[in-house]
Amino acid sequence: MTTQDPIRLFGLGLGPGNPDYMTVRARKVLESADRLVHFCKRGRRGNARTIADAIVGQNPEREIALAYPVTTEIPADHPDYAAALNPFYEEAAVRLLAEVETGRTLAVLCEGDPFFYGSFMHLWWRLKDRVPIEVVPAVTAMSGAWTRAGAPITWGDDVLTVVPGTLPEAELTRRLSGTDAAVVMKLGSHLPKVRAVLKSTGLFERAIYVERATMAEEKIVPLPDLPEDFDAPYFSLIIVPGQGRRV
Amino acid sequence: MTTQDPIRLFGLGLGPGNPDYMTVRARKVLESADRLVHFCKRGRRGNARTIADAIVGQNPEREIALAYPVTTEIPADHPDYAAALNPFYEEAAVRLLAEVETGRTLAVLCEGDPFFYGSFMHLWWRLKDRVPIEVVPAVTAMSGAWTRAGAPITWGDDVLTVVPGTLPEAELTRRLSGTDAAVVMKLGSHLPKVRAVLKSTGLFERAIYVERATMAEEKIVPLPDLPEDFDAPYFSLIIVPGQGRRV
Repeated sequence: MTTQDPIRLFGLGLGPGNPDYMTVRARKVLESADRLVHFCKRGRRGNARTIADAIVGQNPEREIALAYPVTTEIPADHPDYAAALNPFYEEAAVRLLAEVETGRTLAVLCEGDPFFYGSFMHLWWRLKDRVPIEVVPAVTAMSGAWTRAGAPITWGDDVLTVVPGTLPEAELTRRLSGTDAAVVMKLGSHLPKVRAVLKSTGLFERAIYVERATMAEEKIVPLPDLPEDFDAPYFSLIIVPGQGRRV
Repeated sequence: MTTQDPIRLFGLGLGPGNPDYMTVRARKVLESADRLVHFCKRGRRGNARTIADAIVGQNPEREIALAYPVTTEIPADHPDYAAALNPFYEEAAVRLLAEVETGRTLAVLCEGDPFFYGSFMHLWWRLKDRVPIEVVPAVTAMSGAWTRAGAPITWGDDVLTVVPGTLPEAELTRRLSGTDAAVVMKLGSHLPKVRAVLKSTGLFERAIYVERATMAEEKIVPLPDLPEDFDAPYFSLIIVPGQGRRV
């Protein structure tokens, strides 16, 4: 590839969900791309694709759905997980490259910001030296969450620790001990473990559960008020606002 | 205030600098607000106001500049700092409230995301129970930085630690030890201390210095290549990308 090649592949951050929170750049690429690529569970539309509906509607001819061979059925640290995901990303990369080489422009739709825990990163990593790529940054899901919760996350010299809820309990405890503010991503079935960790680290009382912030189905509940047996979806998170310097 | 009151006060996140990375909502409020409020050093225009120039140009009749009585001359943990800043924010809050009560709409311009280390939070905290406020989330400066640096920040189960460079050396060391990925905000004159901490915590080799990401004056340099005597501005940051699970 040369620096003169036009950009035909986009990692397109769509933000937390509300289409008003897409960037001007994201809207423009979304409207003009020849193909809209999205990750999904088999037989379902992905979250990112659903976010785009408000702007581009449904158009089967423009769609490329990349269905994960596995999602949460296999723990991500199990060898079978990489064994399934590696060929999936390899094949997807080859497929997108072939599309780009026909002269089409492709936007890989990402919920939140593409370079913050994004599946797109696995394609970017495989293609970055083979084709020019533009990554469009976006409002993260966590920004949408603290905004809608009315909870400024970091004040003054506050330290913010962002952890995936998928980590083992001892590791979560170690990472969250002594932090001023926290965000727990990828919550889902890990909620009971995360709840226990927040209690043992003194963060529980000010923790807030947030699901689909900025969207119609938004749910925001102080964590202590959430039922013990609550079934959290994968795309939910917990924020713990800091209490730093207020002048 | 009642829930029927129209919203006349906005905490308006403008993103990392490039006007294409403003949200659709931010553009709309920016274009329609009667008054544009911005924080600045005495006698200078603030960063947020400069970001807005590309969209709204200069219009003295629309401007309300809030000039900080002190910025970095007094350490933020010194009693004189709060003694100077507290009446400043109190007076600013009274002034904005009076403007809102005349029926004008005011947008307080924020670089990055308003609820992530934002000065606006000090006004929000004083006014939130007195007048309806809409906070518009935005792409953070750190998202702009890792995007432009071509450096996905968190992979798989990576933990991200965000610290202000203003913290004491021992505290920075404690907080950054063992993290997978890091962002150091509010760098400025703290660069030599931060450099030492990144070396002692093993993060130095993959650290990247970023200044004004997404803007014309953008500067991105691997930290090991930055001259020892480099004079970093306050609005610069360091990112340390994670190296987590790649499948």
